[in-house]
Amino acid sequence: MTNKKIRAGIVGAAGYAGAELFRLLRKHPDVSIEFATDLKFQGPIGDIYPELRPLGDMEITEPETGFGREVDVAFLCLPHTVSMDTAARYLDEGVKVIDLSADFRHADPDDYRTWYDVEHRHPELCREAVYGMPELFRDQIKGARLVGNPGCYPTGACLGLAPLVAEKIISTRGIVIDSKSGVSGAGRNPIPRTHFVETSDSIAPYNPGRGHRHVGEIDEVLGRMAGVEVKVTFTPHLTPMNRGILTAAYADFNGDADHGAVIDIYRSAYGDEPFVQVMSDGLPETKFVRGTNNCYIGVKIVPESGKLIAFTAIDNLIKGASGTAVQNMNLIFEIDERLGLI
Amino acid sequence: MTNKKIRAGIVGAAGYAGAELFRLLRKHPDVSIEFATDLKFQGPIGDIYPELRPLGDMEITEPETGFGREVDVAFLCLPHTVSMDTAARYLDEGVKVIDLSADFRHADPDDYRTWYDVEHRHPELCREAVYGMPELFRDQIKGARLVGNPGCYPTGACLGLAPLVAEKIISTRGIVIDSKSGVSGAGRNPIPRTHFVETSDSIAPYNPGRGHRHVGEIDEVLGRMAGVEVKVTFTPHLTPMNRGILTAAYADFNGDADHGAVIDIYRSAYGDEPFVQVMSDGLPETKFVRGTNNCYIGVKIVPESGKLIAFTAIDNLIKGASGTAVQNMNLIFEIDERLGLI
Amino acid sequence: MTNKKIRAGIVGAAGYAGAELFRLLRKHPDVSIEFATDLKFQGPIGDIYPELRPLGDMEITEPETGFGREVDVAFLCLPHTVSMDTAARYLDEGVKVIDLSADFRHADPDDYRTWYDVEHRHPELCREAVYGMPELFRDQIKGARLVGNPGCYPTGACLGLAPLVAEKIISTRGIVIDSKSGVSGAGRNPIPRTHFVETSDSIAPYNPGRGHRHVGEIDEVLGRMAGVEVKVTFTPHLTPMNRGILTAAYADFNGDADHGAVIDIYRSAYGDEPFVQVMSDGLPETKFVRGTNNCYIGVKIVPESGKLIAFTAIDNLIKGASGTAVQNMNLIFEIDERLGLI
Amino acid sequence: MTNKKIRAGIVGAAGYAGAELFRLLRKHPDVSIEFATDLKFQGPIGDIYPELRPLGDMEITEPETGFGREVDVAFLCLPHTVSMDTAARYLDEGVKVIDLSADFRHADPDDYRTWYDVEHRHPELCREAVYGMPELFRDQIKGARLVGNPGCYPTGACLGLAPLVAEKIISTRGIVIDSKSGVSGAGRNPIPRTHFVETSDSIAPYNPGRGHRHVGEIDEVLGRMAGVEVKVTFTPHLTPMNRGILTAAYADFNGDADHGAVIDIYRSAYGDEPFVQVMSDGLPETKFVRGTNNCYIGVKIVPESGKLIAFTAIDNLIKGASGTAVQNMNLIFEIDERLGLI
Repeated sequence: MTNKKIRAGIVGAAGYAGAELFRLLRKHPDVSIEFATDLKFQGPIGDIYPELRPLGDMEITEPETGFGREVDVAFLCLPHTVSMDTAARYLDEGVKVIDLSADFRHADPDDYRTWYDVEHRHPELCREAVYGMPELFRDQIKGARLVGNPGCYPTGACLGLAPLVAEKIISTRGIVIDSKSGVSGAGRNPIPRTHFVETSDSIAPYNPGRGHRHVGEIDEVLGRMAGVEVKVTFTPHLTPMNRGILTAAYADFNGDADHGAVIDIYRSAYGDEPFVQVMSDGLPETKFVRGTNNCYIGVKIVPESGKLIAFTAIDNLIKGASGTAVQNMNLIFEIDERLGLI
Repeated sequence: MTNKKIRAGIVGAAGYAGAELFRLLRKHPDVSIEFATDLKFQGPIGDIYPELRPLGDMEITEPETGFGREVDVAFLCLPHTVSMDTAARYLDEGVKVIDLSADFRHADPDDYRTWYDVEHRHPELCREAVYGMPELFRDQIKGARLVGNPGCYPTGACLGLAPLVAEKIISTRGIVIDSKSGVSGAGRNPIPRTHFVETSDSIAPYNPGRGHRHVGEIDEVLGRMAGVEVKVTFTPHLTPMNRGILTAAYADFNGDADHGAVIDIYRSAYGDEPFVQVMSDGLPETKFVRGTNNCYIGVKIVPESGKLIAFTAIDNLIKGASGTAVQNMNLIFEIDERLGLI
Repeated sequence: MTNKKIRAGIVGAAGYAGAELFRLLRKHPDVSIEFATDLKFQGPIGDIYPELRPLGDMEITEPETGFGREVDVAFLCLPHTVSMDTAARYLDEGVKVIDLSADFRHADPDDYRTWYDVEHRHPELCREAVYGMPELFRDQIKGARLVGNPGCYPTGACLGLAPLVAEKIISTRGIVIDSKSGVSGAGRNPIPRTHFVETSDSIAPYNPGRGHRHVGEIDEVLGRMAGVEVKVTFTPHLTPMNRGILTAAYADFNGDADHGAVIDIYRSAYGDEPFVQVMSDGLPETKFVRGTNNCYIGVKIVPESGKLIAFTAIDNLIKGASGTAVQNMNLIFEIDERLGLI
Repeated sequence: MTNKKIRAGIVGAAGYAGAELFRLLRKHPDVSIEFATDLKFQGPIGDIYPELRPLGDMEITEPETGFGREVDVAFLCLPHTVSMDTAARYLDEGVKVIDLSADFRHADPDDYRTWYDVEHRHPELCREAVYGMPELFRDQIKGARLVGNPGCYPTGACLGLAPLVAEKIISTRGIVIDSKSGVSGAGRNPIPRTHFVETSDSIAPYNPGRGHRHVGEIDEVLGRMAGVEVKVTFTPHLTPMNRGILTAAYADFNGDADHGAVIDIYRSAYGDEPFVQVMSDGLPETKFVRGTNNCYIGVKIVPESGKLIAFTAIDNLIKGASGTAVQNMNLIFEIDERLGLI
């Protein structure tokens, strides 16, 4: 990479992930934002996010205006099933794609259909796409032209569990994942469940067990790490906070490693990771990661019941979406992975 | 019970549980509050809880002034280890005691010592005391002279799990309980973890696994219901809300009962309970129970992983403390169990 | 009033004010709810407000089903401009009407047009209607057949200022009213400004100066009390809380009465009021009134700047809407004014 | 300024302002933090603020260890009355001082005594100190060796009012300032009023009128801008949010300038300011400034009542404390004023 800036476009810029991307990329020393498009909203981004004005305002334009441009990379912040066609067009134009939807998170188009109830219209791209979790798949991300950016819940769950299943110190059967998410995870569209009165001063579980589509993604990542099929039990909760996901993952603990040994496993897996903080004591809280690309990890062994509990905290809009997307861009273009994120 | 009012005293009236008791008893048609005492605060209760003034103010006085009074029942809202001696004195005076501390929740003084690191100074009372969870032990509460009022977390956890272990449709091994509590559960004393800035817009786990003292209480209740020893894995979370506990309890599911059959088990156990709402669809949220003595229960079976998830929501200060205390009083004095609570 | 229950209907039962009315009337010892209707939602009220189920569920039906019924009173929780025709129909049926919309708050149809940009279609009813603020107009409410229930902001502002302008100890010129409202005041319909993420952890002014329609109502009430025209400056704020309105009203202070003398004026005005708490020291906070029909009032004289500041706190859904509506019903039917509200 | 880094020390690093300074200075490209001291807490700053660990941990040491060091500037985050002596020692050592306490905000030691009830022990320093509001007093800050960093409320109030009083388009008599602050403004020490349960879901006024010490500071700054004595009426409110101050300032409007003309006055005053956003339409909300050094300003003219309302929003810990402190440092050392703040 020479001094030339990476020329980026944001597709679906008016949603929370798009706006967060805008904020991160505007501060990124090696990026110029060439365009920002959106289907529902056109106009200055500062009109809907006045907090972004000091970064220099930008006109959001119609989606079609984002094609045929001289850009290096397009970030897609689109609904699943919509994103795949847009990705294909950008790739055809020679533009790298980092897709924040679910359309390229499953390697196998059949799995995609299972979880999203729709036939993948670009199965070859589905297979080509790299799953963009840098801590687990960094080498594949470098040089990729299409990255499926991970879901927010899978990011927290997999960063906490991947080293443990890889090292086989927990059983892959019977894993229970209980996550608590801030309300921004439900998107910017006002619906009853995001109404302040319905949400504040109360906590609510939803889609428990196997009802949330991120379950398939978690199964697949953990399965790849473990080398065996995994079927987790997962419950997300809508929590009265803006941002953040706290995950508690409970698993049957194999063997007799102590707390220090488990910390060592995490350190060995993540020691050099710029955005993972392994806590040798204490437990993660979402305020530790608010507004950052960091993931905090803590762990507790429970000898009396034979369980291990892994805790992680991330900011769902950054490490769980736009921050990891920028990290993936840095990897693709082989610049310092931390740029724009510290 | 004739027309005569139940004469009650509140010991430790300045804390959150004491103030909530004051509010409930003031509205109770068959109760007169004869005294309210506190070690740290003396003065009008309206000085520290201005919201209580419209109910008629009351002077909180020194603890010693609460003895030798013509009362029928004393509610003790005291720290554990302090409460047991006060209970003994009231019992000596012929006053019934409903103890909201942990001092009389364990039938066996040895269990008490295990969890609270102190020798019980009244082991005979410890054995005599009735565990005050009306839905499970109503018959024993009627006529009791000493009731150990349940802890807040055990209330939510046991109401959700008791019928399932009693009916043996879940395994008693490997139960995982993940609870999310409002901040009032941490008490009125200002400490760093209850500071608004540390707590708002963030969620934090604490004392995970077997580190919270309520674990022993949950084990004991479920063990009584199941007829076998139970050792749960339990994680409480401090959640940015005033009140409420949401509990998700995960267990291995035995057999092939469907959702309707599990609901029937709950209905059979709780059908006539005035304060239990079994949800045949949907899941509990803490806002459903805010300010009430109700417990909502919902359930999800996960065939793919062989798990059952039981969800409950309670108001930690009412069903989890003062409301159940009033319910216990109603039972002891054999008046309508719902009085003062609807 | 004999033992016969007041038969009531709720029109527009699915909104926040309607649901709160349902809750209050269900607990009211002298009321039976005969019907609940709504234009947008039909079905069990417990389906949208599960917290109401323990009070006994009720079917919400089509608006038309609410006519031709044997009821004594109809509560209208409808949008302004819609409500006036419904009121007329109920009055024609001999049913008393308590209207929670703005349609009958202005005595003069011209004032209504000024603030609501629409011609009043029932000017004679507009003139007949009684403004339902019991503390100021109790005698007129008794026996009225049509009551215009006050707006939430005017309730807080006028209870704080009315005795002061009536006693002429503040100037009626230059009054500044700065109010902070919980989000439930914006209604149940999900819109961007009620989205949790837009609202939580932030405070926002809106419609400042003379832009909010409640300004005309405040002007009118204060003008009646003062006997001169009043034009206030008013700014409401959307505050990250569920409920409550805190109002600070700033006025030029005439003469040299001290704090005690101002408190005496309030006491003289409100001494016997069941739902007004005059604070001789301290200041109101919205948590003092959460879930109640109370209004707390405090005051501060600022000799250095010649200002007096009156503070009030109410629960916008109760004292600012449904609670006062019930209080008005109690007055109309000449039963104990406090019934169902304590 | 050459390439050499500015060597800075933080005194009182364990409080919220100190921790925020640490965060800002760690990211500042031209600063090295040489030490961080605190009276109450010693140890890694990451032990009390785990969120700061990714920036590189730092040991907080005893206050005395912060003297005799090779540093260019000391930031004092100390209680008032304590700070003045520490400032004197650092100045004696040839270290520039940016004092975040109130000890050097008043030019006249008599004013200091009036508001803080204590004799200033360094009246000559009191007179020498420059009031560190860059937008109003930039030229004096450049090259100063002692800066009194403004209070949080005065920052919001004065940025909104200064251009208006300077241009004499509002009356300096009768100004009413109504501010709403996040809870971090009350400091990190846990006290009843910062307890989550006392603060969340409620709003509370405190020290109304002339009771808050920041009143004197506001009077003084506005008086300097207006050239006449000013005595404002000021009410702060504790608002259920972490950070931010929203201020509504009401004043009698002189003359007949329209909205555009007032905006032009602000633009003329602040057009080139890097951290002031004048809103030509819309009003400020605290979420616009969360986590930034920006101040947003909006205005409303109310012809019917002859009032003008100026609104500002700042982050109390950044623009209202540590951010302005860094801005002042940049000015003193004549580097780009925006460094470390964008």
